[in-house]
Amino acid sequence: MLDDEALKVLFTEARTQNSFAATPVSDEEIRRLYDLVKFGPTSANGFPARFVFIRSDEGKEKLRPALSAGNVEKTMAAPVTAIVAYDPRFYDLLPRLFPHADARGWFAGNPELAEETAFRNSTLQGAYLILAARAMGLDAGPMSGFDRAQTDRIFFAVNGWKSNFLVNLGHGTGEGIFPRSPRPDFDEVCREE
Amino acid sequence: MLDDEALKVLFTEARTQNSFAATPVSDEEIRRLYDLVKFGPTSANGFPARFVFIRSDEGKEKLRPALSAGNVEKTMAAPVTAIVAYDPRFYDLLPRLFPHADARGWFAGNPELAEETAFRNSTLQGAYLILAARAMGLDAGPMSGFDRAQTDRIFFAVNGWKSNFLVNLGHGTGEGIFPRSPRPDFDEVCREE
Repeated sequence: MLDDEALKVLFTEARTQNSFAATPVSDEEIRRLYDLVKFGPTSANGFPARFVFIRSDEGKEKLRPALSAGNVEKTMAAPVTAIVAYDPRFYDLLPRLFPHADARGWFAGNPELAEETAFRNSTLQGAYLILAARAMGLDAGPMSGFDRAQTDRIFFAVNGWKSNFLVNLGHGTGEGIFPRSPRPDFDEVCREE
Repeated sequence: MLDDEALKVLFTEARTQNSFAATPVSDEEIRRLYDLVKFGPTSANGFPARFVFIRSDEGKEKLRPALSAGNVEKTMAAPVTAIVAYDPRFYDLLPRLFPHADARGWFAGNPELAEETAFRNSTLQGAYLILAARAMGLDAGPMSGFDRAQTDRIFFAVNGWKSNFLVNLGHGTGEGIFPRSPRPDFDEVCREE
């Protein structure tokens, strides 16, 4: 059981950040982040997520035309913008990642199941990224306000990956965030059987 | 920054559990779990996830016919099985959950965007559920091996919610799990720009 301080960092006092201090995020922090995220569970250990960590000005400029207007400024200023993507052919790694069964065969002939699995599980992995960043003392700013198809043309024309969502990472300043918005009550969104 | 013990509980030593001790999960634990999960970020605070916490024998028997054969026994025996679902009309809560803009209007006339947003964000919330359970000292066993359409007919014929994936919850025994499967190296699945 984690203590209250840890729960505050992960959940109860964490906030989506729109503004970040200039403090960079180091190579070592990016690798440490991956070394947490990689342990989060995925279906048949299929690991469909692919991550692009953009820190350079050149990389940010490549991304700029695909961003919704409201997301441009904060993304250009963030120390890192991660593209959470997925490889539609993730199943080619399954003989190594899941040696217990012919899991590749479950997906290779079933593009609809492969796509659903890749999208669902890369999204789970994006959530692991948000919480792992917080666990490391970083702040996250997840965004879906961008043009996925355009992003794929810009970044993934060669390897065929597909973008899912974006996460700005760094040390949040707390500027430009609303007071915490309300959450639904348990009984509005949960049922017990 | 969380300490190593907390990172072990969340990521580095946590395992998907297939077998659970008979120790029940209390009403209070279910509510405490929700009170962590609810703070995880969603797009425009839209909160599309809906959760069904199944603990009774009757509830388990309702779910049984929708489960893949390999998931029946462990699900019947788990103290709780959560259906992570979403409400395709989640946007009707937006005037209250996101009072800063007419966010309902972004989705109400755009069923494709609403569906993508509901599926992505309820999946994020399912990942928050997995990690929040671990943070509370519970173990999780997420599963996508079940018939979503059949589950929707059984549980959601009236309210129109849609199932996304399942998570068994309880105190894992460690029985029936493989040694940790390999993860891809950073350079296989990450790129830097």
